Amino acid sequence: MKIEPIAVFRSPLGEKFGAPRQAGLVAELHGRIEFLPEYCSPEALRGLDGFDYLWLIWGFHLNAPKPSDASQQRQPNGASLTVRPPRLGGNERMGVYATRSPFRPNPLGLSSVKLLDIDYDNLTLEVLGADLVDGTPIYDIKPYIPYTDSHPDAAAGFVDATPWNGLEVDFPDDLQARFLELADSSEPHLIDALKGVLAQDPRPQYHNDPDREYGLDFAGCNIRFKVNEGKLTITDIQK
Amino acid sequence: MKIEPIAVFRSPLGEKFGAPRQAGLVAELHGRIEFLPEYCSPEALRGLDGFDYLWLIWGFHLNAPKPSDASQQRQPNGASLTVRPPRLGGNERMGVYATRSPFRPNPLGLSSVKLLDIDYDNLTLEVLGADLVDGTPIYDIKPYIPYTDSHPDAAAGFVDATPWNGLEVDFPDDLQARFLELADSSEPHLIDALKGVLAQDPRPQYHNDPDREYGLDFAGCNIRFKVNEGKLTITDIQK
Repeated sequence: MKIEPIAVFRSPLGEKFGAPRQAGLVAELHGRIEFLPEYCSPEALRGLDGFDYLWLIWGFHLNAPKPSDASQQRQPNGASLTVRPPRLGGNERMGVYATRSPFRPNPLGLSSVKLLDIDYDNLTLEVLGADLVDGTPIYDIKPYIPYTDSHPDAAAGFVDATPWNGLEVDFPDDLQARFLELADSSEPHLIDALKGVLAQDPRPQYHNDPDREYGLDFAGCNIRFKVNEGKLTITDIQK
Repeated sequence: MKIEPIAVFRSPLGEKFGAPRQAGLVAELHGRIEFLPEYCSPEALRGLDGFDYLWLIWGFHLNAPKPSDASQQRQPNGASLTVRPPRLGGNERMGVYATRSPFRPNPLGLSSVKLLDIDYDNLTLEVLGADLVDGTPIYDIKPYIPYTDSHPDAAAGFVDATPWNGLEVDFPDDLQARFLELADSSEPHLIDALKGVLAQDPRPQYHNDPDREYGLDFAGCNIRFKVNEGKLTITDIQK
């Protein structure tokens, strides 16, 4: 089946590095869904304002490009259908269908996001908590219906068994001011969103070097930081 | 993006008519996911047994075939991006993105199903509560993770505002025996599943003719029934 993007996602997240590993982890993170004109109209949004959450089905467009004979080369045998989830420290292999990894036979992502506002003039939706990076193609948007979609007590395998510890984030005042000056966004909660993203610990799980400086692309800035014993310190903001 | 089926769904539901309108409505309905060999292996299922529910992303393959220039012909203008949800009696138009209608720009379905059993030898998954008909192509399977997927208190627009009344189902004993004899399935809960499907009221919402006899394709049988004042009576079972 051939599917075509109906919308594009806009986010301060400029790259995969730092993107929350699931939707909802950074509730303060604002994003915008921009419909392609041929796939929207004010009427196409009728009734949407009654829903708190939306489902997005989207594409992992930053995966390595597919070889021409995709299915054969991606899956030379069943063994390549396993991945190393970051939740397990990147050491243990799980079957791809037991994970939300981007590296799957069809690179489709699934996220529930909170619907904050609908702009009927510009055909855009403002949403909270997405784990999509800027420029992500969206293939479908559906309403979230609790009676069919919500299973609060469902067991979640290794995800349940692996507690996740966030980081404390130190964002010095002078760098906060510099960030607001350089950022290409005027979202009111931009600093909270960035702190929320960093608190999720963007580092690969096997990294533990307090002297290593990382760079995160956020709101058009290069956010420089180091991590030492559960505390992340922003060291510089560059354009 | 081109996507390829990774699995096929097997169900007693032989056609769209009678398929539950959402996943989870008929909890007794058993289904089986049969992986295509190149998209599975025992290792690809590792870790799946810890999850209670799975997400299926699947294709509405029984929609009318697409014209060759699909996007242009399906959406000549924004006005065609509205649908008449059965929950609203089929009279009121809603924007397609506010509904789970099959008639959407990219005909992708989304269902959470309960995982009952994994057969590692045959690479099949037995699930409960699916709203997929027999032969439905599946494009992705993901684990259900409550902390990111479950929003039990989310408002659900017109779905909340429209109570749904099920039907009482009268399935005479002699026809139950005949059904079990003719059915091409030996599922233990087949009668409960059929009663659950019928209790959802498969009729188009604008139908209300007590003399009209309907036929439903279920487990290889043609289930004949009539509906009168909230009560559905099975009138015959044919092969």
